[in-house]
Amino acid sequence: MTYCLGILLPDGLVLASDSRSNAGVDQLATVRKLSVFEQPGERMIVVLSAGNLATTQAVITTLRQNLGSGEAGRDLFAAQTMFNVTQTVGDMLREILAREAAHVQPFGDPNASFIVGGQIAGGKHRIFQIYSAGNFVEASARTQFLQIGETKYGKPILDRALTNETSLQEAAKLALLSYDATIRSNLSVDAPIDMMIYRRDSLDGTTLRKFNRDDDYWHSLRDTYSKGLGQLVQSLPSPPDFTSRRS
Amino acid sequence: MTYCLGILLPDGLVLASDSRSNAGVDQLATVRKLSVFEQPGERMIVVLSAGNLATTQAVITTLRQNLGSGEAGRDLFAAQTMFNVTQTVGDMLREILAREAAHVQPFGDPNASFIVGGQIAGGKHRIFQIYSAGNFVEASARTQFLQIGETKYGKPILDRALTNETSLQEAAKLALLSYDATIRSNLSVDAPIDMMIYRRDSLDGTTLRKFNRDDDYWHSLRDTYSKGLGQLVQSLPSPPDFTSRRS
Repeated sequence: MTYCLGILLPDGLVLASDSRSNAGVDQLATVRKLSVFEQPGERMIVVLSAGNLATTQAVITTLRQNLGSGEAGRDLFAAQTMFNVTQTVGDMLREILAREAAHVQPFGDPNASFIVGGQIAGGKHRIFQIYSAGNFVEASARTQFLQIGETKYGKPILDRALTNETSLQEAAKLALLSYDATIRSNLSVDAPIDMMIYRRDSLDGTTLRKFNRDDDYWHSLRDTYSKGLGQLVQSLPSPPDFTSRRS
Repeated sequence: MTYCLGILLPDGLVLASDSRSNAGVDQLATVRKLSVFEQPGERMIVVLSAGNLATTQAVITTLRQNLGSGEAGRDLFAAQTMFNVTQTVGDMLREILAREAAHVQPFGDPNASFIVGGQIAGGKHRIFQIYSAGNFVEASARTQFLQIGETKYGKPILDRALTNETSLQEAAKLALLSYDATIRSNLSVDAPIDMMIYRRDSLDGTTLRKFNRDDDYWHSLRDTYSKGLGQLVQSLPSPPDFTSRRS
């Protein structure tokens, strides 16, 4: 499995992915699921990948090979808007699946999904989620985060704490807590976490960091959060005694 | 969907279910998914149901009709152990599915699952989870809780906070927080929550309570927890600045 997360805030974007790839529990690998397509000062595009690894790698590799070709609808550097960028990724997914799906299906699920985030000079910073059908939806102030893969364990903390007033650094903290909840509850998602904090209008794709399990900050965050949560839960009053009370 | 939860502790059991039944988002109903089969002072059995409502109701109703028949393997009051009780429920599920599945499949999933918890005089208090195949697994000190239905959103809080030292009242509190996380993130699970706190060796099935959304205790618990969690998250240090740092 995989867990990828994209957060849209007025100040910018937080984009993150885990690194666990598995084909059954006895075949585990660490892979990079966060890809940057960047023209500094001109465009910064991040693609997060979930699903069949052969499919997602074929999509990303072909998109990278097409960079600079100038071919409309196939070259991410030729796309005029983030909407067009996302269409190009979705179309490439359809192309790869048209080629691969029938061959792969007897052995497993060939499908994949993506989160595409970034900004092109003159446009806004945006995030999209591409389904395996190649169609996609966009995040907004009402739908501030998009998730693909193993999405459920890490959703409650975001539902509770993320608002439009959240700063980028705060959102990065929430993202790490969301990953921690997922990793604790599900073997198929694991560190390192790749994370980009993209500041609006910077058009800079170098603000990328890898959090290993033993990363000092992440370790202390997990530890302090767990202890604080334990104390919080203990401080809450217990429910009234039910004894001899039938509803 | 549904979310049912059974917690096994040295002091007893916490057994809970939500009340939302839906066939598509435009067909919602409130149903009872927690059934008590009780002989005071002799045996206390709770069955929690998830899955196809016609299937689960047929299983529960037939089991209730069979009570007192004395028929081995069909009468829950004739079962000698909680293991045999669970076998009886699993067998009834197989019987109902053998009758119904082929007719229902063209319209939807006929499957169902159950959590069975309780105690028979002279035995221990135990919890089992029955799969749709009718087979089942048992909770233990290492696997302290069992979930069926929409299980993921509410799992992290239990993974973090539940231990073998947790008291029954504390576990009831954690269960309500687990339901709150699920209800916030998923439309298909909703209050009221039916909950039994069963104290070991009491053989008393009257310690049952219904928590409506506006229940004073649950409302205040949700509110205090949300505020406390917000404060906790804010109090944690943000990650170091990523700027110009490529991993």
